[in-house]
Parts: sequence; C-alpha cells; structure tokens
Amino acid sequence: MSVRLAVLQAPAALADVAERLVWLSGRLAKAAKRGADLALCPELFATGYNIGKRIADRAEPADGAIARTLSDMARTHGIAVHCGFAETDQGRIYNAVQCYGPDGARLVHQRKLAIPPGPERDYYSPGAGCALFDLGGMRFASLVCYDIEFVEPARHVAAQGAQVILVPTALSDNWGWVSRQMVPARAFENGVFLAYANHCGEEGGLRYLGESFVAAPDGEELARAGAGEQMLIADLDPARVAAAQARLPYLAERDSLRLD
Amino acid sequence: MSVRLAVLQAPAALADVAERLVWLSGRLAKAAKRGADLALCPELFATGYNIGKRIADRAEPADGAIARTLSDMARTHGIAVHCGFAETDQGRIYNAVQCYGPDGARLVHQRKLAIPPGPERDYYSPGAGCALFDLGGMRFASLVCYDIEFVEPARHVAAQGAQVILVPTALSDNWGWVSRQMVPARAFENGVFLAYANHCGEEGGLRYLGESFVAAPDGEELARAGAGEQMLIADLDPARVAAAQARLPYLAERDSLRLD
Repeated sequence: MSVRLAVLQAPAALADVAERLVWLSGRLAKAAKRGADLALCPELFATGYNIGKRIADRAEPADGAIARTLSDMARTHGIAVHCGFAETDQGRIYNAVQCYGPDGARLVHQRKLAIPPGPERDYYSPGAGCALFDLGGMRFASLVCYDIEFVEPARHVAAQGAQVILVPTALSDNWGWVSRQMVPARAFENGVFLAYANHCGEEGGLRYLGESFVAAPDGEELARAGAGEQMLIADLDPARVAAAQARLPYLAERDSLRLD
Repeated sequence: MSVRLAVLQAPAALADVAERLVWLSGRLAKAAKRGADLALCPELFATGYNIGKRIADRAEPADGAIARTLSDMARTHGIAVHCGFAETDQGRIYNAVQCYGPDGARLVHQRKLAIPPGPERDYYSPGAGCALFDLGGMRFASLVCYDIEFVEPARHVAAQGAQVILVPTALSDNWGWVSRQMVPARAFENGVFLAYANHCGEEGGLRYLGESFVAAPDGEELARAGAGEQMLIADLDPARVAAAQARLPYLAERDSLRLD
C-alpha cells in the first residue's frame, strides 16, 4: 500500500484568487486521473505570495470562501488537496495551509511557525503548534517554507510519527542551494519522505526557482521539476520510512547522545 | 584575519601507527610551508579505522606515545594538528581525537558521541560532552563522523559559539549522499564552516569514498577532494560566519519557534 502524491508547481502569473482556484480545479482533475490521492500546492497558493499590501484584502478566515471552495473541489475530484492561503484571525494575518480530504472534510490546519527576515514580517504573525494528519494509512505533517530550513520542526514532527513532510514554499531563484542541498537533507536525517512544492515564473518582480521535488527517506530524489509549470507524481511507500529509520536510527538514538 | 586550514585526505593503506605518524609528519611540513595554521586528519588516523580486533592493541591512553609524538610534530613544524586515535581509559576504548597547538600544548580532547550500527559497536564506548577550543582567533568544535549526521550535536556546538566544525570521518564509497548532501547542510543550517576529512583507498576490504571537503557558512564549497590522496587548503574568515548568521538567523531564532 502506498500514497500517490501529486506536487503542483504553479505559475506565479495567475492573477487573483478566482483564477488561481480555477487553475487548481483543472490540475486536481488531471492529478485524480493519474491516480493521485493527494495534491500539494505552493505556499500561499490560493491568495498569492508576492503581492504586497493586497494580501490583507485577499486574506480570509480559515472557514471562509477559499476553504469552502477547496472542500468542494476535493470532493468533486475525489482527491485530497493541500493548499496555502493567507488567513485572518482576530486582527492578525497568518501564512497558513489547510488540507481537505476526498470527502470534503478538513484534515489539517497549520500556520507557518517562523516568519523569515524580509517583507513577510510586515504582514504575518508566527503560528504555534505542529498538526499531523492521516491519509491512506500514512501520517503527514505540514511545514511551510522557512520552517523546514530550521532543523527543529522537522525533527519534532518526525518524532511524533510523521512519515511524510509536506512543504509548500515560495523560493526565489537565488536560493537554489536550499532546494538542492539543505531541504533534501531534512528527509534523510529524519528517515521520512519530503515533498517541496514551489511556484514558477515571476510575481511582482520576484523570480521563482521552480525545482519542486519529492525526496525519499533514503535520500533518493523521486522527482524534481524544472523551471516551468509542472506536475510531479510520486508514490510514497511507508515501508521505505521503516527501512530508512532502522538502517540509520538518528531519530531513535538522538536522545541518548550526551552533548553536555 | 583568518585561519588557514589543511585537510589531509590520507591513504588507508598506511600499515601501522609508526608508518602513519611518519606520513603525517611529512604532510605537516608541506602544510606548514603552504601557510596552514591547522591540519585535520581523518577519523582514527593514527591507529587505523578498519583493522578489526587489532584496534585493542593499538589503542593508547590520551597521554600515551601517540599523543606525545603529535605534540612534538606540532611544535617541530609550527602547525596545529588535529588527529584521531583509539583511546583506552579504565578498560574502555573510545573513538577519540586530540588537537595540539604549534607550541605542542593540547588544545582539545573529544570522544565520538554516537557509535553507529555495525562493527564499531564491538569495540567503542560512546563519549560524553562537546569540547571547544580557540585557535587563531576562531572557535572550533570537533565532531567525529557519525556525530555530524545527527542534527543535534552541530546545533549544540554552534550555539556555544563554534565557528568551525572539524569532522574526521571514515566514510565508505557507498555513502556519497552523506558527504555531498547531508553534511554540507550542517554548515549552512548553522552558519558555520565545516571541514570533513576522510580516508581514501582500501583498508581491510572497505573502500573509502575520499571526497573530503570544506564548506563555507553560506553553502559555498571551498574545496572538495577526489578519490585519491590529497591535501585541501582553505582560508576560514570569521566574518563569513557573522554574515551568514545575520542573513539567516536560524541559530538566534530557533528557540522562539513554538513547536507545541
């Protein structure tokens, strides 16, 4: 048994929320046809990433219109959808994701924990807590973009039993090292699958790297996108997680290290 | 001001302790001529790595003949030497390193913290504690081989102010991913220099990868060896550590992440 994942590397040029959700609906239909159980979108996909102050206008509560549309689309196409959006809550804005199952029920809600230096700090508050969810017999965690660059959050969710870490990102083309070198290490060092979904093209003068990828627990790169729009498909087999964690027991033995 | 480091990728075929120390003395002379302040040897260089039960015969106390010879060589050639050896202490054997300064004084003594699954567990006890040392105005930590594959020890020493992590290793040629992908990530994610010194050639049926390297705090690979005997030279500038840690404050902000 395994879970088939579709990673949607989406064009940044999509204009507004409506156009983004229409594009997504088309991709979900295709992903479902290819047998995918779950589709992963880039960071803030539904609202847009590099849109300056307009983010405040597009941001919605976690149970708003974007959420209802995602739930409908998941049910319509019979595929789980994991999608980022700007969330308003009690006067604050969060960089959030939600995942809806093929029955339309919400599986998870997660906010970005670490807001990186730069323009994001003008808008977003940091979230708290790591929520896991189960789908197709596997356990998933969601860590948004900058959160995966720290070693601690990935370690934390893997220790809680996450077998797959889903990472929506918005990585510009001067950060190739992060996508090619550092983020794949998070998969290997925890013995888990990791999927990294990026935008492509240009948005408000920001050029995205593309290069979404799926890494296996043993370091194998199962798929990597180029610079343009692309759908990656990868099968995630939980047996590979068990094998990797048995071969290199970093997780099991980390607490026995006597650092002091 | 910077520290010039020589990484000695040593041939595994060197027969015994005497032959190893003679080889090292010749390399220290060359490294000193090239202006190096410090020379880094592979894991268990002085005693040999893959020599089975013979390790018990070659192991010595931390103040034994190997230690005295290293101290003499450092003073003779006017260069610090960082060298691994099998250490006996109260009936146990440790996979240890010591570093002697150009005046012959011992700068550090560090034992491997994590003994990996496999033959090492037949011989070695895990060490405890991370010792740092200062040389040429920079702060160094030593983590032996498998210790750097865990995220925690590197984070721990970087948080204590280490600007350079020295990693003697004994990596066989089926673990290229570790050398090329995961270990360089430790440098970037902590904003520190990292030097990885491996053996080359064959020892007791084990084929080493070679590919010793030096990584800068911003991910740049300053030098990488091929499969054969080689001396890498790299200049370590503390300003690069400060710049990397300011640009990406993973260390400074990790404790403010609210994981739970």
